[in-house]
Amino acid sequence: MKKLKFGVIGFTGKLGKEVVNLFQEKGYKLVLKVNRKINEQLEKPDVIIECGLSNTVDQSIKLSEKLLVPIVVATTGLSPDQIKGLKHLSNYVPVILSSNYSFGIQVLLKLVEESSKKLKDWDVEISEVHHRFKKDKPSGTAKMIKDLVHRKDVQVNSSRLGNVQGEHTIKYGGLGEVLSISHSATSRKTFAEGILKSVNYILKKKKGLFSFKDVVENKK
Amino acid sequence: MKKLKFGVIGFTGKLGKEVVNLFQEKGYKLVLKVNRKINEQLEKPDVIIECGLSNTVDQSIKLSEKLLVPIVVATTGLSPDQIKGLKHLSNYVPVILSSNYSFGIQVLLKLVEESSKKLKDWDVEISEVHHRFKKDKPSGTAKMIKDLVHRKDVQVNSSRLGNVQGEHTIKYGGLGEVLSISHSATSRKTFAEGILKSVNYILKKKKGLFSFKDVVENKK
Amino acid sequence: MKKLKFGVIGFTGKLGKEVVNLFQEKGYKLVLKVNRKINEQLEKPDVIIECGLSNTVDQSIKLSEKLLVPIVVATTGLSPDQIKGLKHLSNYVPVILSSNYSFGIQVLLKLVEESSKKLKDWDVEISEVHHRFKKDKPSGTAKMIKDLVHRKDVQVNSSRLGNVQGEHTIKYGGLGEVLSISHSATSRKTFAEGILKSVNYILKKKKGLFSFKDVVENKK
Amino acid sequence: MKKLKFGVIGFTGKLGKEVVNLFQEKGYKLVLKVNRKINEQLEKPDVIIECGLSNTVDQSIKLSEKLLVPIVVATTGLSPDQIKGLKHLSNYVPVILSSNYSFGIQVLLKLVEESSKKLKDWDVEISEVHHRFKKDKPSGTAKMIKDLVHRKDVQVNSSRLGNVQGEHTIKYGGLGEVLSISHSATSRKTFAEGILKSVNYILKKKKGLFSFKDVVENKK
Repeated sequence: MKKLKFGVIGFTGKLGKEVVNLFQEKGYKLVLKVNRKINEQLEKPDVIIECGLSNTVDQSIKLSEKLLVPIVVATTGLSPDQIKGLKHLSNYVPVILSSNYSFGIQVLLKLVEESSKKLKDWDVEISEVHHRFKKDKPSGTAKMIKDLVHRKDVQVNSSRLGNVQGEHTIKYGGLGEVLSISHSATSRKTFAEGILKSVNYILKKKKGLFSFKDVVENKK
Repeated sequence: MKKLKFGVIGFTGKLGKEVVNLFQEKGYKLVLKVNRKINEQLEKPDVIIECGLSNTVDQSIKLSEKLLVPIVVATTGLSPDQIKGLKHLSNYVPVILSSNYSFGIQVLLKLVEESSKKLKDWDVEISEVHHRFKKDKPSGTAKMIKDLVHRKDVQVNSSRLGNVQGEHTIKYGGLGEVLSISHSATSRKTFAEGILKSVNYILKKKKGLFSFKDVVENKK
Repeated sequence: MKKLKFGVIGFTGKLGKEVVNLFQEKGYKLVLKVNRKINEQLEKPDVIIECGLSNTVDQSIKLSEKLLVPIVVATTGLSPDQIKGLKHLSNYVPVILSSNYSFGIQVLLKLVEESSKKLKDWDVEISEVHHRFKKDKPSGTAKMIKDLVHRKDVQVNSSRLGNVQGEHTIKYGGLGEVLSISHSATSRKTFAEGILKSVNYILKKKKGLFSFKDVVENKK
Repeated sequence: MKKLKFGVIGFTGKLGKEVVNLFQEKGYKLVLKVNRKINEQLEKPDVIIECGLSNTVDQSIKLSEKLLVPIVVATTGLSPDQIKGLKHLSNYVPVILSSNYSFGIQVLLKLVEESSKKLKDWDVEISEVHHRFKKDKPSGTAKMIKDLVHRKDVQVNSSRLGNVQGEHTIKYGGLGEVLSISHSATSRKTFAEGILKSVNYILKKKKGLFSFKDVVENKK
């Protein structure tokens, strides 16, 4: 099998480093690396992984379109215009867009869907904790959870604390009982592994916009 | 509509009191009350609620059989023989048996079923906290949760702490992430309301053994 | 010993009921009861307990001043003017003012003082959860905790969920570790017992403004 | 200033790697490295860090005694004989022995001491969660916490879950309230930093047995 060539936008960030490490462990070749200061392309990559800051996404969209290379987007805090840009891009290449590439979060989302249906008249509160360096607020994952609750007035509490990697909790409060579902990331490698799975999935696609949920469910 | 007549075994216990209060609020008539010292029957009840200690159950089975009256059993820590006795009884009258009459716990059980299927290779740990006066250990609810995990080596940690009304947590640990589902009872009235629902359900049945899950799903 | 006579402002509220129950269990006599609709005084009370809503406090101040009777104030969400009014009142009668009459909260406050000194460069986040009927936000206790942290930019997250009686958590986040201290009230009787302690304390005083901390430490 | 030379027993373990990384970042020189297969000494170290498994400690004691080099012991699950051996060793060289080199844990221990005094008649429960690869149970830190509670019948619940780095919780349960103090390690670097602090402390000592508490309090 031919060795996979990959590019990472934001290769020196927290997540970028994990991706580079895991992919290199697998024997894949880093041929394109971009951060605020460096922009280095050795060869044409088979796939681009975008895990920079939200302001690097525009450039990544252009790059993916120019090279006609699939792209996995892990950056959060995107603007509506950027999301529109990715949709447009997906007419030409396959695009995966998700706020969270952890498998456990996918399970949590499934549970939230189920319990939100059953506990319609209970109060709901979502909270998330991340490291103090996280820029966007609330987290993209908290927004995904909120969307699944299907209500207007759901409160989302965001905390920035130390270097917590990521905690998401949803609490349902009835009269006399509280039910809560919680996910905590203890290692960033989890996300890198979800991105690896996504790369394997996207390489079989011709074009289209996919989510990490599609990857986990192996949607045709 | 005719006023419901009910009997409570263990009517002075924590749960027994809540049942008596809620049922009387509804206008129901307490016609049979039993505890360690008192055994008073004014009229034949339409339904018996057993919420005493495990050693009162034998007597309740006999009473239900003698009077041919449906019974809702909320007592936990039953022996295999007592469970056999209730099964036998259900040939003659409808019987509802559950370790927990809270609606939220039913939702938790559903979520546990779902997540246990998806997280087969993750570690699992169940824990429960109850007030220091709770006799049986682990709680009947913790056992129900354990049964749904479908594994051999699941650890169950039990704590007896102050007068905590009841907390159950299941944690799944993968490499890099932890998912947990948790239920906390903040008022015993919740259980009384589940028992009320069960009474309304059982009165429509002729015989058979039912669970609170059947009640919640309104099983025919 | 002469039987204590007490008055309760807000005697039909959640806390008011608990106070009435506990004090009557002790053999004390309820001689003054006030709520939105009822205002009934049988005899002159030895002490007034204010646990109504913040808008009943003005009237209680007047009553305490008129009767020259000590007052224990458990109502939260007071305005600066009301606090000034209580200070003024304390020139004539003893006044106890606290946002929280639980012993455990006093211990938590002590711990917060200690850990805030040791963890000066860690991030801090305070959160509180109360039942959906609680009017003021953040809770008076959360404000007390915040004051002990001695920092400007401490975030306080408030949630209103089901009928949770009261949870307060402070989290300190360092690079690589999180320390948290948490208190959860599982029964309102706790607060009534703190108020009982406060009554026993206040009856020995001639005048002055005291806190529940003074009561717990039995300050001279 | 002369460059510090250090040795690490268990240099390929989870903690060992962090120590090597952090110390090399500081410009220190790794001159002795030992694991199950490798035993390599380039020069005489200024300090030895033992973070292997409990069965490597005997050898480390001998090595420290032979070379007359201070030793910092971070390995847990030591036998009484090994502890005796370290005490003996401390007659000749300075020794630091602690189950946990995180600063936050030192603060937690302080808080536990304080609250255990104040909450003497409350129930106590200690729990710890660590990654599934941790051998000893309960953790050394849980034992330290237990010792500070000064009671006979304290329950310690241990869970092994995914790759959780380390969580310790103590819960106090009164009638009507629960107080809990919790510590969670989110990065192993925390421990390496505590070990670095300990090295700086130990180098100023001639001999004697010290704890990480002594280091934090800079005991003379």
